[in-house]
Amino acid sequence: MKKRFLLVALILPALATQAQERPNMVVFMVDDMGWMDTSVPFAEKVYPLNQRYHTPNMERLAREGMKFTNAYATPVCTPTRVSMLTGMNAAHHGVTNWTTPWKGQNSDNPDEQMGFAAWNLNGLSPVAGVPQTVHATPFPKILKNHGYMTIHVGKAHWAGAGTPGANPHNMGFMVNIAGHVAGRPLSYLGERNYGNAQGKPYDIHAVPDMAEYFGTETYLTEALTLEALKTLEAPIQNKQPFFLHMSHYAVHDPYNPDKRYMQKYLDAGLSNTDAMYASMVEGMDKSLGDIMDYLEEKGVASNTVLIFMSDNGGLSMAYAGRGAAHTQNLPLRAGKGSVYEGGIREPMLVKWPGVVKPASVNHTPIIIEDFFPTLLEMAQVEQYKTAQQVDGISFMPLLKFPPKKTADRALIWHIPNKWTREDGPGINYKSAIREGDWKLVYHMRDGKLELYNLRSDIGETTDVATKHPKRVKALAAKLSQQLRQWNAPMPMVKSTGKPVPMPDEVR
Amino acid sequence: MKKRFLLVALILPALATQAQERPNMVVFMVDDMGWMDTSVPFAEKVYPLNQRYHTPNMERLAREGMKFTNAYATPVCTPTRVSMLTGMNAAHHGVTNWTTPWKGQNSDNPDEQMGFAAWNLNGLSPVAGVPQTVHATPFPKILKNHGYMTIHVGKAHWAGAGTPGANPHNMGFMVNIAGHVAGRPLSYLGERNYGNAQGKPYDIHAVPDMAEYFGTETYLTEALTLEALKTLEAPIQNKQPFFLHMSHYAVHDPYNPDKRYMQKYLDAGLSNTDAMYASMVEGMDKSLGDIMDYLEEKGVASNTVLIFMSDNGGLSMAYAGRGAAHTQNLPLRAGKGSVYEGGIREPMLVKWPGVVKPASVNHTPIIIEDFFPTLLEMAQVEQYKTAQQVDGISFMPLLKFPPKKTADRALIWHIPNKWTREDGPGINYKSAIREGDWKLVYHMRDGKLELYNLRSDIGETTDVATKHPKRVKALAAKLSQQLRQWNAPMPMVKSTGKPVPMPDEVR
Repeated sequence: MKKRFLLVALILPALATQAQERPNMVVFMVDDMGWMDTSVPFAEKVYPLNQRYHTPNMERLAREGMKFTNAYATPVCTPTRVSMLTGMNAAHHGVTNWTTPWKGQNSDNPDEQMGFAAWNLNGLSPVAGVPQTVHATPFPKILKNHGYMTIHVGKAHWAGAGTPGANPHNMGFMVNIAGHVAGRPLSYLGERNYGNAQGKPYDIHAVPDMAEYFGTETYLTEALTLEALKTLEAPIQNKQPFFLHMSHYAVHDPYNPDKRYMQKYLDAGLSNTDAMYASMVEGMDKSLGDIMDYLEEKGVASNTVLIFMSDNGGLSMAYAGRGAAHTQNLPLRAGKGSVYEGGIREPMLVKWPGVVKPASVNHTPIIIEDFFPTLLEMAQVEQYKTAQQVDGISFMPLLKFPPKKTADRALIWHIPNKWTREDGPGINYKSAIREGDWKLVYHMRDGKLELYNLRSDIGETTDVATKHPKRVKALAAKLSQQLRQWNAPMPMVKSTGKPVPMPDEVR
Repeated sequence: MKKRFLLVALILPALATQAQERPNMVVFMVDDMGWMDTSVPFAEKVYPLNQRYHTPNMERLAREGMKFTNAYATPVCTPTRVSMLTGMNAAHHGVTNWTTPWKGQNSDNPDEQMGFAAWNLNGLSPVAGVPQTVHATPFPKILKNHGYMTIHVGKAHWAGAGTPGANPHNMGFMVNIAGHVAGRPLSYLGERNYGNAQGKPYDIHAVPDMAEYFGTETYLTEALTLEALKTLEAPIQNKQPFFLHMSHYAVHDPYNPDKRYMQKYLDAGLSNTDAMYASMVEGMDKSLGDIMDYLEEKGVASNTVLIFMSDNGGLSMAYAGRGAAHTQNLPLRAGKGSVYEGGIREPMLVKWPGVVKPASVNHTPIIIEDFFPTLLEMAQVEQYKTAQQVDGISFMPLLKFPPKKTADRALIWHIPNKWTREDGPGINYKSAIREGDWKLVYHMRDGKLELYNLRSDIGETTDVATKHPKRVKALAAKLSQQLRQWNAPMPMVKSTGKPVPMPDEVR
């Protein structure tokens, strides 16, 4: 018997180790944060905007992990979030614009030239048969089935009310705090109950689940962080691996001052609106630091993957009140809504102790649908079934040291929608494809094809299409082929009653 | 080596068994359900009200478990819910009336004779130092710390907005669906988005977290049940013991028809309001059945304790529109708000396969604060620290076969509040004590002491105080002693500026 007990002692720690082996994973997703809204330089040099913003915890994360300089999302929110959860490109899942909070409402603006594309305006559905949705298996569901504690905190915005996708639980999240059908908060201010204001008209953008902080000075970003950390107590104690989707409402409008940081930006000479925005950015950065601190205090940082990401480019419209239109992401061109780099290139950081080399940089282009296979690979989930064909490619090889190359492939953006009432640079009815350093932009209104070399011209200032007709033709063909294969939604040309031609059909 | 592997095989199932040994626990808590709102007769015979209501799943639960005929809560909602979570008597925790959704607001009605008692109008706080709260350790927190998956679905109502108790997560619930600061739903109807109505004034009683069902015909009770069952998937799969607080908003007002059951009650000749109420009761009963079915299908019913309970007596006010005032719980006297039996006696059922004998009945008086030590004992939590002194006594001995007797003790009710604008039978400014078959009722306004023998007079029709002066004196002394020991809040008599006398100080 003595021998047997000895063996028990030998075996138990082994089991415990195995239970802990699978890493915890945190995706820290920021809303509407631009590539330059940080003191971490993602470009080849430090730009003035890097000096405006203070994000010391992003700096810390960059020191401890890997910086991706060519990480991409889609031009607007819901398409990115659906791509992340499904591993599908937006042109494939067909949720190409943001979803309204209410089922069946088209967020597209009406247009004289174009009729609506048949996009999936009801968003993502984990259940088949829901009209105007993409039916797909969200990866948190797979993680949950494999023993992960799956937690969503903050903005959800995968679908509208009255559909299964309205409920983060249906995506496989066991815990949901403050995630629902709205894509922005009515207010970030505890003093205003985050928009839950008695006596005023009901607005679905009021943030749910936060009553504890009503009437306090707790900024929404802080409140969500506190709630997120509470959810980690049990899985850490139970040695259950967890996936936390820390999905901040910040830094989407409305711009409400985060009082903790306002004065320093006003003192630095920023306008009130710019200071409000910068304070929101720093409040978000503080949340990142609090999560890093917490993981360290609890002794789980060494087995936790932490990924920082934003869902689209920084808002660059004039109405935002932050300077001249489309200057907010310089040197990148344009901003949210655009297929130019300002709309799609994201500040992405990955920390994974023992795997990712500290202070490393990777320039390989990756895109948001790559999160799906990567996170499942990190979680050591090898066998899984999905309702959808997954487009994303795991970026695990890039994380290892020395990093391995992933197969070359083209990245595609597709927004057959009228996101804003007035067209802007790269905004409304666009597709784009990037292969290597080359990027082709397709303007659906007039069939124009632009070509940029991102290595020499990150700002997409010089269209070199006429100089490289063969490359234009090849990229247009590749883009068209993929859009056809995915049956990508296209707008209807009102004058002809036919869909907009594919890029390889123009001229 | 071969031998060693054999031992592993021997040990692993043992570990797995141990992991499953602790039972899952479901407290199925109904709101405002009266003792007679069921086809299960809890009295010594079948009364007309038992014939009015159809609760086949309660009948099934009674067949499979134990019926408690002398189970008690407090006269109103929040005091009961706080007693359950803390194990404290209401006179001890001082949350003696319902809490408003907003911090610092007194739900008591103003009165000419009485000034407000210093009750804890901000409810339960799991954190020290919050004004006008009782600071206590809720048992779900202890269960969570001992590896239970703790889940709250439905009505919470432990505290107001702006306090930690507003948030079920702070009570130790890892998952919260639809629980917040409100004590009733604005609507039970999916067609009305459960009160989340665009364009109408914001009302905190709109039910959160239910957007999936907006615009559908899903009755709130059904939606909460569906959500609750989803939360059980993961712990069942992970073999993690769970505690589900299935806390229905039903059958609190507003009375909205549950269409699935309306017609049968109209056909039976009930008034529209009575039929609406009966349909809500049967919808709640269907939820119970769905949960029982689910546990059986998943193979965990045999290791799950299921407790059915209500939080106070059935609403018996004339304004409810369900017949003449205070007839709704006959043969019990009065209803919600009252210290007479109609306000406090509850339909309680307990199923625990292998422990509780099917179709058994227990007449021992138990009270809601007993849930605290009982549930922790069921969960095999032997060592725990609490901020509070626990008053409840485990009823585990009663569940076993043959049932053991628990120590004799007196039960106490205390509501030094003006719950309704007009006094009613046993309603406003009352205390009561039950010992054995005897019950003393103390009327604070005039100092009157009534005595009833519940064995011979369950309807409390005949005050026998003058026949038993010694018993009155003894019970008044015991009640007073306990109220003093607990420092129970008492109303102030405006004319004297002093607190209402204790029962042993009158005359």
